[in-house]
Amino acid sequence: MKVGILGCGQLSRMLALAGWPMGFRFSFLADPDEPVRCVEGLGPVVRQDGLMTARDVYVAMGSPDVITVERESVCVPLLRQLKTFCPVYPDPEIVWAIQNRHREKTLVADLGIPLSPWEVFREHEPVQEAIARIGGFPVVIKSTEDGYDGHNQWVIDNSEQLEAFEKERETLLQKPASKGIHEWIVEKKIVFDREISVIGARTSNGNIVMYTSGENHHNKGILVHSVIPAPDLSELLHNKARDYISRLLQETGYVGVLAVECFVAGNELLVNELAPRVHNSGHWTMDGAATSQFENHLRAIASLPLGSTAHQGGVVGMYNLLGQKHSDDSRVPDQFIAQGTYLHWYNKISRPGRKLGHLNILAENEEELGGSFESLKSQWT
Amino acid sequence: MKVGILGCGQLSRMLALAGWPMGFRFSFLADPDEPVRCVEGLGPVVRQDGLMTARDVYVAMGSPDVITVERESVCVPLLRQLKTFCPVYPDPEIVWAIQNRHREKTLVADLGIPLSPWEVFREHEPVQEAIARIGGFPVVIKSTEDGYDGHNQWVIDNSEQLEAFEKERETLLQKPASKGIHEWIVEKKIVFDREISVIGARTSNGNIVMYTSGENHHNKGILVHSVIPAPDLSELLHNKARDYISRLLQETGYVGVLAVECFVAGNELLVNELAPRVHNSGHWTMDGAATSQFENHLRAIASLPLGSTAHQGGVVGMYNLLGQKHSDDSRVPDQFIAQGTYLHWYNKISRPGRKLGHLNILAENEEELGGSFESLKSQWT
Repeated sequence: MKVGILGCGQLSRMLALAGWPMGFRFSFLADPDEPVRCVEGLGPVVRQDGLMTARDVYVAMGSPDVITVERESVCVPLLRQLKTFCPVYPDPEIVWAIQNRHREKTLVADLGIPLSPWEVFREHEPVQEAIARIGGFPVVIKSTEDGYDGHNQWVIDNSEQLEAFEKERETLLQKPASKGIHEWIVEKKIVFDREISVIGARTSNGNIVMYTSGENHHNKGILVHSVIPAPDLSELLHNKARDYISRLLQETGYVGVLAVECFVAGNELLVNELAPRVHNSGHWTMDGAATSQFENHLRAIASLPLGSTAHQGGVVGMYNLLGQKHSDDSRVPDQFIAQGTYLHWYNKISRPGRKLGHLNILAENEEELGGSFESLKSQWT
Repeated sequence: MKVGILGCGQLSRMLALAGWPMGFRFSFLADPDEPVRCVEGLGPVVRQDGLMTARDVYVAMGSPDVITVERESVCVPLLRQLKTFCPVYPDPEIVWAIQNRHREKTLVADLGIPLSPWEVFREHEPVQEAIARIGGFPVVIKSTEDGYDGHNQWVIDNSEQLEAFEKERETLLQKPASKGIHEWIVEKKIVFDREISVIGARTSNGNIVMYTSGENHHNKGILVHSVIPAPDLSELLHNKARDYISRLLQETGYVGVLAVECFVAGNELLVNELAPRVHNSGHWTMDGAATSQFENHLRAIASLPLGSTAHQGGVVGMYNLLGQKHSDDSRVPDQFIAQGTYLHWYNKISRPGRKLGHLNILAENEEELGGSFESLKSQWT
């Protein structure tokens, strides 16, 4: 099985490392300026330029048997054209829907799955009215595209902050069309108890597996660590999470791994966002589940039976190793490898805040895991 | 961490695939005619020729931080010289001891670990006397070197078979010294109930982990499948196996993974042979244990804490995919990938009897696993 992946980051790396043992071969498509160190050695890298047709890309990638993506910010027209040469999973249309918050929320809402109240506004449209319609401050404004890890998001608690946003909007609108942001959604800022995510996979013939839901902890919009299973999550909420992901997978005819981030507010579970791909909050599955999200994504897109998602006994933790301010090298932090600790390193150049690797931790209980997190926080600075 | 491995077979492949996620980098040393497809893409391959000094080899391999082996049949003088440039694990002297059955048995016997009664004889020395000393027929004669997967072994049940062996011995002795076999051991043929193997790892500071013992099933000297844990193995025998491996690791100051094959005869556990490396009977650990034998070998030689060897609940099976007579291609048999089944494929050219890959199977119980084995036997022919 030859797999072509659009993107050359850590998710592509981990997909390839999951597929090599099964005899899969990989090729990667890189944007003109994209770093490719993560996939170095794992298969040929094709550097895209504006002159290549979809056929050129397909042939340069070695005529793969199936094409997939490691991120939602891909060129959907190219993806649609590649589909004339081989299957593309997930389907370009679901990638297209999810890469824009307006379309994404419409998709979720149309399935009757709860979201925080939201409205959309474009360019110079007044935002005050939209805010009023969803019940006033506090709100969060997000660009409908180009948002990730907290970029292009504004938390608005009062009129002063709204005014500041309006000024910034003017600046953004003056940028050239291709770089600018022209549409936003505004959503009610949820006072949520915590964020959980649920990850599932589906094959083209409709088989579905789901992983145990985990709880995610962010800092400035970037995932710092996850705990699996989400501590003390009620059976009701676990079931809601399973219901959402299975409906999303089934109703959209999805093929591959899908991740759903949700806010927990009391007994409510509101979808925050979807990711049509393997996801950072599922990295724990590499050591904490019978089959990793990466292997199951490959099994799904290769039309092979999915593997068990059973999680290891005890509690599993995932801790992101983010680039630190003063670190100027890419020294592998193998001093963190311990008895129940597994390192996954991405071969990147260090930069502050950049995801350089992660550790999976298998612990007896939440207290033990908490201790490991504390110790990591104090060492990895 | 840069790791140099002597050998380019499937064990090197699986070591590299276990090390890549941890940020390890690999280089491989190939014999002049050795196929290198198994490690293709996983790191530079240095093709050894007779003119290279140990320093040349070390530099060509990229000056690794540590050197290890994937087989015992390596050039020990080279290994000894490489030790002047970086650590070599396991130590060349233990590799030297194990690569010769006479030295291997002496090592085991000196530790007071039980073996089948045995004697050694050289060149034209009479074998009848040796056979008489160990109690007469039936016996097994094995060359002290160059034996693997049943090669250079003779089962002798009576005088006629001994006569046939003596004729063959004459022919072998007439071969040029470098190709000939000049020393044999003869051992009492044990009426054993079954063969089990036990695998352990040790770090240079003396930490030891051991995996659950498994039962091995061979056909014509080649491992066909393993079942873990070894079914209905008494606590007494489990403990004996653990005692043997921990003494072998500790007393020899071993660093890395060591495998010990044993015969079970009633309440007796007799050592059959040692392997100073990761071992086919430990491949189940890739999907059936918290940490694979490959990762633990790397952790050991890199002086990192060893990972948990806890095995998944239920029963784990390993099934070797051996090249079949009529198959002339290297088609990946991904049709075997099922819910609880994990494929590891070595990227080799198919040849009858050659180990092309293996499947790990996670099952509820022995009956279920037996059914999977039966189904595989009927399909993989």
